[in-house]
Amino acid sequence: MSGTKCTRLSGAPVRRLLDSVDSVLFDCDGVIWRGDQAVPGACRVIDLLKEHGKKVFFVTNNSSKTRRMYAEKMSALGFGVSEEEVFGTAYCCAAYLRTVCELEGKKVYLIGSAAMAHELEAVGIRQTGVGPDHVSGKQGDWAAVPLDPDVRAVVVGFDEHFSYMKLNRALQYLLREDCLFVGTNRDTRLPLEGGKAVPTGCLLQAVETAAQRRAQTVGKPNHFMFDCVASHFGVQPERCLMVGDRLDTDILLGSNCGLKTLLTLTGVSTVADAEAHRESGCAERQGMVPDYYVDSIADLLPAL
Amino acid sequence: MSGTKCTRLSGAPVRRLLDSVDSVLFDCDGVIWRGDQAVPGACRVIDLLKEHGKKVFFVTNNSSKTRRMYAEKMSALGFGVSEEEVFGTAYCCAAYLRTVCELEGKKVYLIGSAAMAHELEAVGIRQTGVGPDHVSGKQGDWAAVPLDPDVRAVVVGFDEHFSYMKLNRALQYLLREDCLFVGTNRDTRLPLEGGKAVPTGCLLQAVETAAQRRAQTVGKPNHFMFDCVASHFGVQPERCLMVGDRLDTDILLGSNCGLKTLLTLTGVSTVADAEAHRESGCAERQGMVPDYYVDSIADLLPAL
Repeated sequence: MSGTKCTRLSGAPVRRLLDSVDSVLFDCDGVIWRGDQAVPGACRVIDLLKEHGKKVFFVTNNSSKTRRMYAEKMSALGFGVSEEEVFGTAYCCAAYLRTVCELEGKKVYLIGSAAMAHELEAVGIRQTGVGPDHVSGKQGDWAAVPLDPDVRAVVVGFDEHFSYMKLNRALQYLLREDCLFVGTNRDTRLPLEGGKAVPTGCLLQAVETAAQRRAQTVGKPNHFMFDCVASHFGVQPERCLMVGDRLDTDILLGSNCGLKTLLTLTGVSTVADAEAHRESGCAERQGMVPDYYVDSIADLLPAL
Repeated sequence: MSGTKCTRLSGAPVRRLLDSVDSVLFDCDGVIWRGDQAVPGACRVIDLLKEHGKKVFFVTNNSSKTRRMYAEKMSALGFGVSEEEVFGTAYCCAAYLRTVCELEGKKVYLIGSAAMAHELEAVGIRQTGVGPDHVSGKQGDWAAVPLDPDVRAVVVGFDEHFSYMKLNRALQYLLREDCLFVGTNRDTRLPLEGGKAVPTGCLLQAVETAAQRRAQTVGKPNHFMFDCVASHFGVQPERCLMVGDRLDTDILLGSNCGLKTLLTLTGVSTVADAEAHRESGCAERQGMVPDYYVDSIADLLPAL
């Protein structure tokens, strides 16, 4: 298989690939939209996949929106999608805490967005509040900052109000051995048009470095995100296709979970990146080589 | 030599060691003071070393004070020290930028303290200002945040006003290839009494992760801090003793610069830590094995 990986997908093989799967997972940014614009043809691809009886899901590491917010954005862009089909890290983080951790009656110290707080509360998990937390007092007082005795987990996602005091508060909780540590994702920054970028997952790394502990993450490439989809909808890995624009998150998730993988070139990664992984001779990097690639998911249209 | 490293220093060998050096470098926190209290006997050790004609210097990675602020703190604790004898990372960072980087007429984007701003300005380097920088606007605007066209370096030290917006601004500067990147130190957190700690150097790591660039650091264990002392005062490495409580900063600095090294057990590291490095068989870790150790620098008193 490895000799034929990373091949351009076109013609008859497109139909054969689609016939071989019942479900298709799409990453969002760089795959079905870019910023605030739908990728041309993407809406039609989703519609036609559904008409052909495929289950379609959306998996995104961006923790700044609830499932409902994603469904609304997608609707505004012309996609016919329900919120049950969307799996963002805000939702998956809440699902992880509810199903894996035993937090009954306990609380979460949250470094994250209002969307994350909303998804936590939707599954009955209390959190300490979001928004600004500016430094006060003197350095000697910071290690003695008041802590909520009900907190049993620190959760770190994207937080535009990230601050020294939040970092410090997270550290103080994490110095307790019984405090769980969960992060949404490790993508270090969000690439934007024109080579621009803003910081994202590096917040988690700052907390990890301070605490000298490693968080459990729920986002891609961790298999938990696929487990969420699979457990809700009975998806069989070998009958599922993962479509994404990032080798280190989307394609690696697919490889980690035994899915077929398709790289689309409308986002971050290039064919040269994928080929470099394939030729590296490094076993760890083979999971970042997609089975196939297309210029855009619109290339699937002729087979639909 | 390695077979006899990490030996307890007492009796006649103390005098022999002191006779073999002209200069002694002390780390501060955990060595000559702990928090706001002088280590018992430390003032007398410093005084007697000077009376015996030794040059004495103080090297600290803590970037929150200027040389003058350190001299004032030391004076208040009973040490007879002048500010020229103190080398903190705030000062050394300014010295590095002035002597190594070509910043004439240019500016620094500073994530750091008022003390760092002061030391930069004292050597004629302008900076963009310190203090709070809270997030504003929407995510789409952050990558287009206004940048100062004169900035040619990002400098990261300890900053209690560290925020998402500062991280973002640093990233935007560092996306320019001609922007230098300098950090004070990499110690991830500042240990306090009773197992407590507050975050410190992890701020640098957050910026590095976002920018996907590695900063040049001036603090221990980087040799620049010793170079600063040596170039000002003509110190010969082989006639110099480094005294510290941390293996990964103080002792490693000494090893990196060819100094004799003495671990004192009034701070962070233990003899067991040092022995673990010695027995590891790992070449990289041998630099963290001190030549000698003492319970406290007061153990030097009988030889003085």
